[in-house]
Amino acid sequence: MSKSFAEAIERAAYQNQSRLVLALDVKGPNAIERANRILEETSSYICCVKVNKHLILPAGLEGLKEIVKRAHSLGLPAIADCKVCDIGSTNLVEVSYYFDIGFDAITAMPFPGWIDGLRDVFHLAKEGGKGVLMIVLMSHKGASEFFETIVFDEEYGVFDKLYRVFARRAVKWNADGVIVGATRPDAIRQVKNIVEDKPIFSPGVVVQGGAVEEALKAGASYVIVGRVICESANPADKARELRDITRQFSQ
Amino acid sequence: MSKSFAEAIERAAYQNQSRLVLALDVKGPNAIERANRILEETSSYICCVKVNKHLILPAGLEGLKEIVKRAHSLGLPAIADCKVCDIGSTNLVEVSYYFDIGFDAITAMPFPGWIDGLRDVFHLAKEGGKGVLMIVLMSHKGASEFFETIVFDEEYGVFDKLYRVFARRAVKWNADGVIVGATRPDAIRQVKNIVEDKPIFSPGVVVQGGAVEEALKAGASYVIVGRVICESANPADKARELRDITRQFSQ
Repeated sequence: MSKSFAEAIERAAYQNQSRLVLALDVKGPNAIERANRILEETSSYICCVKVNKHLILPAGLEGLKEIVKRAHSLGLPAIADCKVCDIGSTNLVEVSYYFDIGFDAITAMPFPGWIDGLRDVFHLAKEGGKGVLMIVLMSHKGASEFFETIVFDEEYGVFDKLYRVFARRAVKWNADGVIVGATRPDAIRQVKNIVEDKPIFSPGVVVQGGAVEEALKAGASYVIVGRVICESANPADKARELRDITRQFSQ
Repeated sequence: MSKSFAEAIERAAYQNQSRLVLALDVKGPNAIERANRILEETSSYICCVKVNKHLILPAGLEGLKEIVKRAHSLGLPAIADCKVCDIGSTNLVEVSYYFDIGFDAITAMPFPGWIDGLRDVFHLAKEGGKGVLMIVLMSHKGASEFFETIVFDEEYGVFDKLYRVFARRAVKWNADGVIVGATRPDAIRQVKNIVEDKPIFSPGVVVQGGAVEEALKAGASYVIVGRVICESANPADKARELRDITRQFSQ
């Protein structure tokens, strides 16, 4: 896949008329085999695939490489949802592993900050046409505890909620997208006003209660769906059903 | 290793007269083999071993299991420095992988908050006598960007630096230890006043400029050292040299 992440996901979204990112949250015995099967079955209804710790740890780099290769052969880019959150040198080692086996994008927590934190990750990604998606507001209930705390934003000299500060940093750092929970359409609207044409990825759909259509209407570009597809008796049917809801936003 | 993490590390610290946690930050070809060799060679001079993404990703769960087993056979507990930072259900999957292959403790970022964030991780760890070490202040320069930002602490109704809020949360959540960069002895002192007898683990020693003795004098219980030992021509000599500095704090 020689296109940049942004081009690759836009192209797949157009071809499959889909705004659905599949979270391959498969664990337990035969996880890689089952993940590959779900990926194959749902590939015409999604625009991208994302893996998280469920699969990263049991698959290891060799297993992940196989999944990324499969995704690319199906015309889909792949995101490593590693939530990079360490000192710069460790972050570089981590994301290099993912980029080297073909991942098109990684996710990053903003907390390490820029200097000796995320700067080198952004530079490495930009050089290779890879994407960095920044977590701006998580989708679970406890996210309010710190992401919504009132902080003093030194850059702007104002008090504001932390996730709004993160949204402004995503613009400043030139992130390729931001992640805002589908459980909070009001926050999606606010973040959209800040990040403008930067795509918003929205997880927490269905199982956590966020509605697909509501998230897209609020300004999300993509919805991330995992358990409700992966744990379905018929992943393809479930993916098609959700894709159909996103279709009106795929023009 | 049937002891709790707290007992295991205290016992190894006493036996080896050491306050040194070895960060096995080994990467590249033959990483597992080299990691095992460094662990063997330095085992009499350290009280615990920690692995991070450098080794976690190439080793995979099978390789890590071997390293944990080796550590236990040498009388040392093992920490998975995974910096858990996701929604609760994903965090549980991730830490279960680590606990199931024998790790005695994991590290956690406080940002997901309690509800549907870290609560279940703490419960799972407590049930199994495992440790949860909370990152309170990172060791790199960029850490000041968010960890030192002024936030409103709703629990106490005061404005304070975020890392001080995290230190109070570590007490409330009953973390088994906290992590504060050795580069900031003044912050170690402040955190010590808040967490009292909870052990402080301090990374960023030597390569990042923090001094071993200074960190321990400021109130750290353990210093975490990686690159300067792992990249040394003689890891055992380097570990012994650093151990000797910590010795006066091991009584």
